[in-house]
Amino acid sequence: MILRVDRLQTELPPPSDPDPVGAAAVQELLGGKFGEMSTFMNYTYQSFNFRNRQGARPFYDLLASIAAEEFGHIELVSAAINTMLTGAADGTPGKAGALKGVKDTRNTQHFIAGGAGALVQDSMGKPWSGDYVFSSGDLVEDLTHNFFLETGARNNKLKVYEMVDHPAARALTGYLLVRGGVHQVAYARALENLTGAQMMKLFPSPRIPTDKIPECQPHIKKGEHLKLYRFSPNDYREIVAVFNGQHPETGEDLMVVDEAPEGFPPNDLPPQADVFAPDYAPEEIAEIAQKLRKAAGLPDKVTGIVANNGGPKAKGFTKAQI
Amino acid sequence: MILRVDRLQTELPPPSDPDPVGAAAVQELLGGKFGEMSTFMNYTYQSFNFRNRQGARPFYDLLASIAAEEFGHIELVSAAINTMLTGAADGTPGKAGALKGVKDTRNTQHFIAGGAGALVQDSMGKPWSGDYVFSSGDLVEDLTHNFFLETGARNNKLKVYEMVDHPAARALTGYLLVRGGVHQVAYARALENLTGAQMMKLFPSPRIPTDKIPECQPHIKKGEHLKLYRFSPNDYREIVAVFNGQHPETGEDLMVVDEAPEGFPPNDLPPQADVFAPDYAPEEIAEIAQKLRKAAGLPDKVTGIVANNGGPKAKGFTKAQI
Amino acid sequence: MILRVDRLQTELPPPSDPDPVGAAAVQELLGGKFGEMSTFMNYTYQSFNFRNRQGARPFYDLLASIAAEEFGHIELVSAAINTMLTGAADGTPGKAGALKGVKDTRNTQHFIAGGAGALVQDSMGKPWSGDYVFSSGDLVEDLTHNFFLETGARNNKLKVYEMVDHPAARALTGYLLVRGGVHQVAYARALENLTGAQMMKLFPSPRIPTDKIPECQPHIKKGEHLKLYRFSPNDYREIVAVFNGQHPETGEDLMVVDEAPEGFPPNDLPPQADVFAPDYAPEEIAEIAQKLRKAAGLPDKVTGIVANNGGPKAKGFTKAQI
Amino acid sequence: MILRVDRLQTELPPPSDPDPVGAAAVQELLGGKFGEMSTFMNYTYQSFNFRNRQGARPFYDLLASIAAEEFGHIELVSAAINTMLTGAADGTPGKAGALKGVKDTRNTQHFIAGGAGALVQDSMGKPWSGDYVFSSGDLVEDLTHNFFLETGARNNKLKVYEMVDHPAARALTGYLLVRGGVHQVAYARALENLTGAQMMKLFPSPRIPTDKIPECQPHIKKGEHLKLYRFSPNDYREIVAVFNGQHPETGEDLMVVDEAPEGFPPNDLPPQADVFAPDYAPEEIAEIAQKLRKAAGLPDKVTGIVANNGGPKAKGFTKAQI
Amino acid sequence: MILRVDRLQTELPPPSDPDPVGAAAVQELLGGKFGEMSTFMNYTYQSFNFRNRQGARPFYDLLASIAAEEFGHIELVSAAINTMLTGAADGTPGKAGALKGVKDTRNTQHFIAGGAGALVQDSMGKPWSGDYVFSSGDLVEDLTHNFFLETGARNNKLKVYEMVDHPAARALTGYLLVRGGVHQVAYARALENLTGAQMMKLFPSPRIPTDKIPECQPHIKKGEHLKLYRFSPNDYREIVAVFNGQHPETGEDLMVVDEAPEGFPPNDLPPQADVFAPDYAPEEIAEIAQKLRKAAGLPDKVTGIVANNGGPKAKGFTKAQI
Amino acid sequence: MILRVDRLQTELPPPSDPDPVGAAAVQELLGGKFGEMSTFMNYTYQSFNFRNRQGARPFYDLLASIAAEEFGHIELVSAAINTMLTGAADGTPGKAGALKGVKDTRNTQHFIAGGAGALVQDSMGKPWSGDYVFSSGDLVEDLTHNFFLETGARNNKLKVYEMVDHPAARALTGYLLVRGGVHQVAYARALENLTGAQMMKLFPSPRIPTDKIPECQPHIKKGEHLKLYRFSPNDYREIVAVFNGQHPETGEDLMVVDEAPEGFPPNDLPPQADVFAPDYAPEEIAEIAQKLRKAAGLPDKVTGIVANNGGPKAKGFTKAQI
Repeated sequence: MILRVDRLQTELPPPSDPDPVGAAAVQELLGGKFGEMSTFMNYTYQSFNFRNRQGARPFYDLLASIAAEEFGHIELVSAAINTMLTGAADGTPGKAGALKGVKDTRNTQHFIAGGAGALVQDSMGKPWSGDYVFSSGDLVEDLTHNFFLETGARNNKLKVYEMVDHPAARALTGYLLVRGGVHQVAYARALENLTGAQMMKLFPSPRIPTDKIPECQPHIKKGEHLKLYRFSPNDYREIVAVFNGQHPETGEDLMVVDEAPEGFPPNDLPPQADVFAPDYAPEEIAEIAQKLRKAAGLPDKVTGIVANNGGPKAKGFTKAQI
Repeated sequence: MILRVDRLQTELPPPSDPDPVGAAAVQELLGGKFGEMSTFMNYTYQSFNFRNRQGARPFYDLLASIAAEEFGHIELVSAAINTMLTGAADGTPGKAGALKGVKDTRNTQHFIAGGAGALVQDSMGKPWSGDYVFSSGDLVEDLTHNFFLETGARNNKLKVYEMVDHPAARALTGYLLVRGGVHQVAYARALENLTGAQMMKLFPSPRIPTDKIPECQPHIKKGEHLKLYRFSPNDYREIVAVFNGQHPETGEDLMVVDEAPEGFPPNDLPPQADVFAPDYAPEEIAEIAQKLRKAAGLPDKVTGIVANNGGPKAKGFTKAQI
Repeated sequence: MILRVDRLQTELPPPSDPDPVGAAAVQELLGGKFGEMSTFMNYTYQSFNFRNRQGARPFYDLLASIAAEEFGHIELVSAAINTMLTGAADGTPGKAGALKGVKDTRNTQHFIAGGAGALVQDSMGKPWSGDYVFSSGDLVEDLTHNFFLETGARNNKLKVYEMVDHPAARALTGYLLVRGGVHQVAYARALENLTGAQMMKLFPSPRIPTDKIPECQPHIKKGEHLKLYRFSPNDYREIVAVFNGQHPETGEDLMVVDEAPEGFPPNDLPPQADVFAPDYAPEEIAEIAQKLRKAAGLPDKVTGIVANNGGPKAKGFTKAQI
Repeated sequence: MILRVDRLQTELPPPSDPDPVGAAAVQELLGGKFGEMSTFMNYTYQSFNFRNRQGARPFYDLLASIAAEEFGHIELVSAAINTMLTGAADGTPGKAGALKGVKDTRNTQHFIAGGAGALVQDSMGKPWSGDYVFSSGDLVEDLTHNFFLETGARNNKLKVYEMVDHPAARALTGYLLVRGGVHQVAYARALENLTGAQMMKLFPSPRIPTDKIPECQPHIKKGEHLKLYRFSPNDYREIVAVFNGQHPETGEDLMVVDEAPEGFPPNDLPPQADVFAPDYAPEEIAEIAQKLRKAAGLPDKVTGIVANNGGPKAKGFTKAQI
Repeated sequence: MILRVDRLQTELPPPSDPDPVGAAAVQELLGGKFGEMSTFMNYTYQSFNFRNRQGARPFYDLLASIAAEEFGHIELVSAAINTMLTGAADGTPGKAGALKGVKDTRNTQHFIAGGAGALVQDSMGKPWSGDYVFSSGDLVEDLTHNFFLETGARNNKLKVYEMVDHPAARALTGYLLVRGGVHQVAYARALENLTGAQMMKLFPSPRIPTDKIPECQPHIKKGEHLKLYRFSPNDYREIVAVFNGQHPETGEDLMVVDEAPEGFPPNDLPPQADVFAPDYAPEEIAEIAQKLRKAAGLPDKVTGIVANNGGPKAKGFTKAQI
Repeated sequence: MILRVDRLQTELPPPSDPDPVGAAAVQELLGGKFGEMSTFMNYTYQSFNFRNRQGARPFYDLLASIAAEEFGHIELVSAAINTMLTGAADGTPGKAGALKGVKDTRNTQHFIAGGAGALVQDSMGKPWSGDYVFSSGDLVEDLTHNFFLETGARNNKLKVYEMVDHPAARALTGYLLVRGGVHQVAYARALENLTGAQMMKLFPSPRIPTDKIPECQPHIKKGEHLKLYRFSPNDYREIVAVFNGQHPETGEDLMVVDEAPEGFPPNDLPPQADVFAPDYAPEEIAEIAQKLRKAAGLPDKVTGIVANNGGPKAKGFTKAQI
C-alpha cells in the first residue's frame, strides 16, 4: 500500500515562457526506456516479486523504498512537462487557429489528445511498455540490471539537460541527476555486499561531472548525493545494512535518512481553456466545487496547499488563460 | 510523493497447490487494458496533469486518493500471481527437466524470464502500454472515461473470478470486485455533481451480483462497498464534497473514511531455487544478509513483518523448495 | 460511402459443438498479417489514395469493388469465430467456475474481455496493425503487393483449413479459398494488362488443389472461382476492362457480374449469459426492446431477417443458454 | 456485406496550397485512438459480435447502421489528407532534391513510403491497432464505451480544427464535429432507453460550441445535427425505436432518415509523379487504360463521376504535376 | 561486410520425435529480449556506431568479432527450432485434418504462417523489436549493458534447458551456455581493463553450474569456455589486448584463437509438404533445380555439403514426408 | 557462420556539414518495413528455414549469399547515418545548451539515447520488428515476397535520394539503388526459372531511371548492376544455375562473380564527446587502449585499417570535437 503526500520532492519554478518542443524532449525522461516510469516500475515489481523477504530483508527494504522515491520522480517529470506546456497554446477555445502555434511542434498529441499535460510516452511518441520491466527473481541479476538502468537513465538525463534550457527542465534534471546518482551507488553497493565485486571503480558512469553542473549544486550542498531516505512511516528499516560506506566519487560517508523528505508544495498550474483543461469554462467548475464544498461542511478556504498560496508568482504569469 | 506501507489491502491465502495456467489468466487483471496498471496509471496521471487544483479541489482530491488506493491493487494482483506460481516449477535447480512440468503452460515467460513472479503483461503476454492511459485534461471527459474504465475492469474481474478457482485468485477477485465498485460509484457521483446527469440508474453495470458472490460477502459485511478511504497522512481532505449520497444498488449511505485502512502483512513467499528466485542457493543470501544486518547494528530478529510471522502456514507448505 | 446489407456472402452452419481452440486459430484469418482485415484495409486505402482516377478508371474500379467484397470477408470470419465460441463457456453467470472450462484455451481474451466474440487479433493474440497496410501510390507496385498478399492469404487459409475441423471453419475456409483465388487472379491480370508480364504461369501459388477440397466444390460448381462481382448500386462499371481472359488454372472464361451477390441471412446466435453477451439477463433487454419498438410504431414482428427465421436449427441448439 | 458508393458524405475543396504538416496532424483523426478507424471498427465489430439480434433488434440496427456511416468518415479523412498533400512534393521525379522541401515535415512516411497519401497511423506515426476495438458483448457496456469514444473523438476533432487551417481540414472537421455529435447523442439515448439513466445532462461533452463554429453552420442549417441516416437499401429499419426524443443541446426533435444521404462526387486528385503516384509517367497508364476500356466495349467517356467533371477547379490548380 | 560459411558452430542431432511445444519455448532464445537476435544485433550496431576506432581498437575488435559469432547463434537456434518442428505436422498436404495435431500447440504461427520454421518472435509470439538494441555510444556504458545482457541471456538459456528435453534443444542450450559464458567474461574483462573495477567476483552470475550440466561437458572439455575466436579472415587482431587473464570460475587462462572455428555441416532437413515447405510437391522443385544445374554446367553431384552426406541419419528419420 | 571483414561495400565520403534531419529520414532505409534490416533478415531466415537444400541447392545458395550481401547494407546505412550525425551536436560535454541545436530535430533519440549513432528504427522512430520477416517455407511464395520487398525497397531508396542531399546519403542511395536492382532481378529470374512466368516485363518497377541518376553512374559503369557476388570463401557455388540471362532493362548479360568484392576501408569517425561517444574524455580511452595493446605485445601502430589512414580528410574535418 501507499500513502500519498501532496508535495513534490524538489521545487520547480512556476510557468514562464512555454517550451512545447522542449517538453516533447523531456518526455524521454518520463516514458522512455530509461525514463522514470521504468525506474519506478522496475523496482516496484522487483519488490512485489521478492521471495524470501525475511531472509534477505535489507535488500528487499532497499528496493521497496527506492521504488517509493521513484513515484516522486514520475510526478516531478510530469510537473515539469505541464509547466513547460502552460501557455503554449494560447488561443480562444473553440476558435479556428487557437492551436495554430503548435501545429509543427514535435508532439502534437500534447495538444490534440493530452490537454497540455504529460503523456506516458517517450520523446518520439512511443508509449512506455511493460516490456521495459526486468524482474528475473534472481537478486544479483536484478541488481545488475538496476545498476545498468540507472547508468542509462543518468546518461539520458544529462542529454536532456544539455538539450532543453527551460527553467523547469533545468531544475528537474539538476535534481534527478543527483538523486539518480544515489540510486546507482545504492545498487552498486548492494552488489558489492552480495558478491564482493568492487563496483565502485566504475563511477562515475557515465562520467557526468555533477559537481560542475550549476543546477546540481544546491542539492549537493544539502548532501542529497549522499542520502537515501526511508520512504515509509514504519517499514523498510533495514536499508542501513546495505547502503553504507563511502561515496565512490567524493569519499564522503553515505547515510540513510530515517524518514521521507518534507517536500515542496506544487504550483497550481493555471487552466488552459483552449485545450479544455480542466474545461472550456473552468470558472464554472470552480463554482460547482465551491457549492459542493459548502454542502459538505468544508471550510471556506480550500484546504489543499499549493506553492505561494496559488499566489503572486502564478498571478504574475503573463499568459494566464483566465 | 508517496510513503510506502508494507501491508496488503486484503488478506491473501498462503501458497497451496500451484496454478500456473490460472496465473496466466490473472495477468489480465494486472497488465490488461482493463487491469490494475491501467486504473492506477490513469488516475495517477490525471492527477499529475490536473490544472486549477484549488478551483476544483474536491475532484482533484478524489482522483489523487483513488490513484493511491490503486497502487495497492497492482500489489495485490502481483501477490496473487506469485502465490499461484509458487511450487509450479518444482525441480532441482540447473537440472534438465526441472521446468518440464510448465513447458506447456500458457505463459512460459513466468518461468523462462520472470522467476515465477508477476509480469507487466496481460493474459496473452502482451505488455501493458502507456497508450492505455487517458488524460484529456477535461474533467468531465476524464471522469466519463474513468466510469467506463471501472465498468470494463469489473467485467474482466468477474470473468477471471469465474475462470480461475485457485484460492488466491478467488480472494483477490472477491475483494477487487467490491473495491472497484466503489470507484465506479465515485466517478459516477462526481459526474452527477458536475453535470446533473443521473448516472446512478446505470448501476449495476455490468450487472454483477456482488451480493451473491461468496468471496465478496466478508467485504460487504464490513461495509467496504460504501467506503472511500483517504490514502494520505494529511492531504486530500475534500473528497467528502464529492463522494456522498446513497449507494445506487443498496441505498445505503456512502462514506469517506478519513484515513487509510490498516492492511494485512503479506505472506513471505518461499524461494523457488529452480528459477533462481532469489538465487540458486537462497540460504547464502540469507547468511550474507544476516552479517550485513549485524554490522549495521540491527536487532537479531528481522524487523519486517510478514503474515503468520513467516510461520506455521508457510511451514506447512508441502512443496517448499528449501 | 457504403450501404450495408444484412447478409453474409456465404452460408455458415449454426452453432454446434463449440471449439474455442479452433476459434483461436481462425483469428489468424481475421487479424493476422495475411488476414481479411489486411486485405480489406489494403484495398480500401489504396482506393482512397488513388490519384488520377479518371485516367486509370478500370484499375480504380477494380480496387474499390474488391475492397467492398473484403468487408464481407471480415464479417464472415467474425461470424465463424462467434459460432465456434457459442456454448464454449457454459456455466451460470456470476458463479465461480462458470468459465473454468476455458481457462486453458489458447485465447483467454475471448472470454475475459471479448464476450465470446471475435477480436481484432491474430492467432497469437497480437492486435492487427495499421502497419500491415501497403499503399505506395504507385499502381504497379500496389498491384504487385496485392498479388503477393493474396498469395500469402491463401496459404494461411489452407493451413487453417487443415488445422481446424469445426464445420463453421470448414465452410468459411472453403469459401474464402475460392474467392481469394479470384482476387489473386484479378491482381495478376491487372499487372499483365499494365506491363505485359505473363503472370498467369505463377498459378496456382501456393499450389493449393482447390478442385480437390470438398468444401470448395459447391462454390466452384457455381462458378464462384471465375466471377468478380461489382459491389455497388451504380459505380465501378469499368472492372470489365481489366478482369477478363482465361482462368490460369482451368482455362475457363473469367467474368464480371454486374451486381453484388444476394447473400445469405446470418444465424442469430444465442446469448451467452455467462459472459454477459448481450447481458446477464438477455430477456430483459428483449423486453425493453419490444417496448421501444411498440412505442415507435414498428410492427409486432421483428423486421430483421435471420437464418431459419431464428427458428428450428437455433432452437435445436443443445447448449442454448436461455 | 456492403455496397460501395463512389461519393463522399460531404464536399471537400479541391487542392490548393499544400499543407504537409497539417496533414500529419489530421492523421490523428484517421489512425489515432479516437480517430475514425476506431469508431468505424468498434461499431463494426460490435455489430458482428451482436448476439440475440432478433431480441434486441433496434440496438443492433443502430450499431450496424452507424458503423456503415463511419466507413464514410475514414474515406473523408483520407480524402482530406490526400488533398493537403497534393503539391507538397513538387520536384522532377527521380531527381535529387525533388523531395527536399518535405525533408523536415512531421511525417516523412507520407512521401518516402506513402505516395503522398493517407497512412493508417496517428499524428505521431504510430499505426492504428486492433487493440483500440472494444467489444465486450455486454450491450450496456459497449454503449457506455461508445458514448465515451465519441466524446473523446469530438475533443480530438475540435483540437485539429483549432490547429490546422487548411480549407480541406476545416471542411472536414466542421462536418465531423456535427456528425460525431449525432452519434454521441445516439449512444446516450440508447443508454437512457436501456437503463433509465438521464444521460442528456452530460451534453455538450466536451463543451464544444458547434453553433459558433462557422464550418459547422451549413450542416446545422441542414439539420445534420438531428438526423440519423439508415445506411442500407433494405435493412436496419428499427433504428427509429431507439433514436428519438429531443436533441440535448437544442431541444429540437431527433429524426431518422430512412435512407442514406446522396453524397458528393470526390475530387479527382492530380498525379504526383515525383512520388510515383500513380506512376512515374501517369499518362502512359492512362493510355493503357484507354485501350483496355476500348477493348472491353466501354464508352469513350469514362463512366466514373468526379467533382466538377474533373474540370475547371482541378484545372485551376496551380501546382499541377502534369 | 561478411562472408558466409555454410557450417553450424556446433553439431545438432538430426530430427527425431517432433516437439512443437518445446519449439515454441525455444523461440525465447531467438526472438526474446534476451535471445540471440538481441546479442547479435546489440554488438553489431555498437560496432557500426563505434567512434574513434583507431584510438580504441582493441575494444572495437572485441565487439565486432563477438558480433560475428552471434550470427552463428541465431543460425543455431533456428536450426534447432526447425529440427524440433520437423514431422510435427504429418498429414497429407491440402487435406482437412492435416494439421489437426498442432491445433492446440503454443505457437500456431509456426504452422499457419511459418512453414514449420523459425519465427522472429519470443516464446509468447511477440516479435523481436529494434527497441531491444542498446547503443549509447559510451563505451563503458555499452559494455555494462552487454555484461548485463549476457547475464540475462544465460539465465533464459538455463531455463529453456530445464524446460525442454528434446535432444536438439539440449544440444543447443548446452553449447550456448558455454559460449555465452565466454562473452560475459569478455565484457566483464573489458570493463575491468577500462575502469579497474573488479568484475570477476560477480561470477558465476546467475550461479549456473555449467560444470555439472552434462550437455556442457564436451564443450568444456574442448576448452570452449576459455576461447574467444577471431571471426575474420584478416581483421580484428587486437582482441588479445582485452581478452586475457584468468577465467573467474576455473582460474584457467583465457585465450584468443586467431581464426574462426571450423564448424559442422548442417543437417538437410526433409521437406514438410503439408505446410508447403519448400512446396506441395518438393520433388518437382528438385527436378527443375537439377535441370538448371545441368544447364549451368555444374557437376552432377550437388556441391553443397550437409551432415552425413544427407544420408543414413536423415534416411532413418521415421516420419519423413517424402 | 559468418566471417566479418572490416570493409564497406562502397566508399562513403568523410563527415562534412552535419545533417541530423536528413539522418532521421535515412533511418527509413535501415529500420523501416522496406529497410535493409528487412532485406537482411528476410533472406537470412528464409535460408535458415530452407528445407531440402540438396534438392533445391541453387535456390538455397542464391538466398544465402544475397543475405550475406545485405549485412553489408545495414552496415552502410549505419555508416551514412553516423557520418551525417557527426558534428551535429557541437557543444561542450556536460554543459547546458550543448545539445540545444538539435532540440527540434526530427529524431531526438539520436542524441538523448543513441550517442549520435544509428538506431534500429524507421524515419518516424518506430523500432524495426521481427514481424517484418516473411518466411513461409514455400519457395515460390518466398521468392514472390522477395521480389515485392525489393520493389518496395527501391521505391523508398529513391524517395530518400530525392529528399536528402547530404553527400553521404547520396553516395549511399546511389549505390543501394544499383545493388537492390540486382537482387530484384535475381528473385524475378528465380521465379521465372521455377514457374515459367515471364517476370522480366515488370521491370523497371518502380520505374526508376537509374541510368539518369548521377550517383548510380559509377556503379553502372563498373557493371555493378549485372553482377551477383558469391559472399563466401567456399560455399554457395550454385548461384550460377539461377542467376543468368539478360538484364531486363539493358539486355546485357547477368554474371555471377565467384567471390566477394574487395570493399573499402571505413572512415574512422571522430568522437562526439558531448554525447559521450565513446566517452566524455575519449583520449583517456585511447591511452588505456595503448597500454593494453603494449601489454599484449601488439605492434605500436594500430593494426586496423581505416580510410585515408585516419588521415588528411578526417583532419580537415572542420567540426572535429577533439
